[in-house]
Amino acid sequence: MAQKKKNVVVIGGGTGTFTVLTGLKKYPLNLTAIVAMSDSGGSTGILRDELGVLPAGDVVRCLIALSSSDKLMRTLMDYRFENGKLKGHRFGNLLLSALEKTSGSFDQAVERASDVLRIRGRVVPATLDKVDLMAQVGKRIIRSEEKIQTAHLNGSLKHIWLEPVARANPKALTAIREADVIIIGPGNFYASVLPNLLVRRIPETIRKSKAKKIYVCNLMTKKEHTRGWSVADHVNALEKYLGGPIGVVVYNNKKPPANILKSYAREGDTLIAWSDLPKSRTLIGANLMSRQRVLDKIGTAAKESSLVRHDAGKLAGIIAKLAGVKK
Amino acid sequence: MAQKKKNVVVIGGGTGTFTVLTGLKKYPLNLTAIVAMSDSGGSTGILRDELGVLPAGDVVRCLIALSSSDKLMRTLMDYRFENGKLKGHRFGNLLLSALEKTSGSFDQAVERASDVLRIRGRVVPATLDKVDLMAQVGKRIIRSEEKIQTAHLNGSLKHIWLEPVARANPKALTAIREADVIIIGPGNFYASVLPNLLVRRIPETIRKSKAKKIYVCNLMTKKEHTRGWSVADHVNALEKYLGGPIGVVVYNNKKPPANILKSYAREGDTLIAWSDLPKSRTLIGANLMSRQRVLDKIGTAAKESSLVRHDAGKLAGIIAKLAGVKK
Repeated sequence: MAQKKKNVVVIGGGTGTFTVLTGLKKYPLNLTAIVAMSDSGGSTGILRDELGVLPAGDVVRCLIALSSSDKLMRTLMDYRFENGKLKGHRFGNLLLSALEKTSGSFDQAVERASDVLRIRGRVVPATLDKVDLMAQVGKRIIRSEEKIQTAHLNGSLKHIWLEPVARANPKALTAIREADVIIIGPGNFYASVLPNLLVRRIPETIRKSKAKKIYVCNLMTKKEHTRGWSVADHVNALEKYLGGPIGVVVYNNKKPPANILKSYAREGDTLIAWSDLPKSRTLIGANLMSRQRVLDKIGTAAKESSLVRHDAGKLAGIIAKLAGVKK
Repeated sequence: MAQKKKNVVVIGGGTGTFTVLTGLKKYPLNLTAIVAMSDSGGSTGILRDELGVLPAGDVVRCLIALSSSDKLMRTLMDYRFENGKLKGHRFGNLLLSALEKTSGSFDQAVERASDVLRIRGRVVPATLDKVDLMAQVGKRIIRSEEKIQTAHLNGSLKHIWLEPVARANPKALTAIREADVIIIGPGNFYASVLPNLLVRRIPETIRKSKAKKIYVCNLMTKKEHTRGWSVADHVNALEKYLGGPIGVVVYNNKKPPANILKSYAREGDTLIAWSDLPKSRTLIGANLMSRQRVLDKIGTAAKESSLVRHDAGKLAGIIAKLAGVKK
């Protein structure tokens, strides 16, 4: 009898989650991506404002990552209109929004888009409520993920939450309960990863789940939010919102070339230090860095890049080993 | 051995062609819709202007008609955004335009959209050249289908043509050559039907084709273009541009209720008279009128209508009989 596939839940939303999913979809796993729903910038933000729909952007990225359709379909979903009033809108976002309007629910829209893109796995919005990411920074209250993205939180962030209270999507809770492995991150800490943990009942359901819980730490700091943070600082912040310990921490321990670090430093960003690691955790340090030539967002064309990015294959290899799964 | 399916080519583009295809797709036929490419109004026109794409609207309508996808997919394709900068854009048009941009050709875009919508049959643009419908009315030259739609052509139309010269899509010529039956119309005479015959080599290829050639005459006149025209007037005008005779003329011979005719008369439109019929043609007069309750554009919901429309089932029944095909 064939062994039951392991249930793997990936929690996040942005580019980091795209990378994890891209790597993991090559393994025989039941993959579920749980996606934060507080995005409010760019094409997604305009559609939220003008059409009153839920934010599609992060869901679309995960759908593209998990799609087994051919290159053209994935390119289509990622296509941004370049002219006129449609300028800046990503086609996949328009698809999700039009499906939400015609099917009457975002949940249905995601299911249908999943069929169209023939995805391997599932993409599940963390919440189906219309929420804004909120932050109290000193005495100031900031509303919307877009504004929080550029706000300086370092040291003065008092509180971060969703408004109104976000109820969990029951499908997200079920996936977490049934998971063998839960992966949190990598990704923009306050804008992509954390909003999932601000949804009611998600942190406690993760805590109670018997799954192996893995945090994949970022490679670089974000100067407005996590300036100077070490691996331990990330884990501490995460566990504060999770309300309990994460079992395994995967972090990078390879320095990128000096010239690349220098160009990051000019922007105020630094490599996340692995000299400072959390205690009493399973720690897995490895070279997680993508080579100089990185794949573009949809994994189709190679181009030179000076960006420091996780390597989808390396990361997936480590996670698969932790899950006890081979290709 | 199963008999080879008959090749049926439907030439037009607008609502009339939608009706013919909707009816015929229930029969075991190889259906090809050849679609005029001079549309320049509404959502289609904006996309042409802003993105430099080919006109998608009529192709999308034919794709919806031939789709074997479920109701939601067809509703999605026909969905028009209602707010913001996207207002008025039909989702199907955005799909075609984004596919044209990402695949690099309109032809590819139509093929891919056909896959996504799982269509029964094929939709073939008459030309892949970017053309405008032009008309000389008296001494005035009018450019664009959108302007010609509302221009008064009656009696003063000197000449109608496409600019620049439109070369036929080779697939359209092949379909015409291999056709057993060719159906022209119904539809807006100068804006939807005729532009197909203004494409180079299409009229001569139809003339040379051994197919049975059927013209389905409209039900009502259009006051700006065909005021007071009889069935014979339509056939004469068509044959002038075709350069030869059409074999079979299908026309309606049932009067709609007086109150409906009255509301049309207030707009200057009248029932097309069957008292004046062309000579030396196979003439098939029948009640082609849709009942009071008509289906909406995508054939899913019934609503009351005071519009005079062809009945898809009745029309398809007559055409199928002419083609020698049963359901």
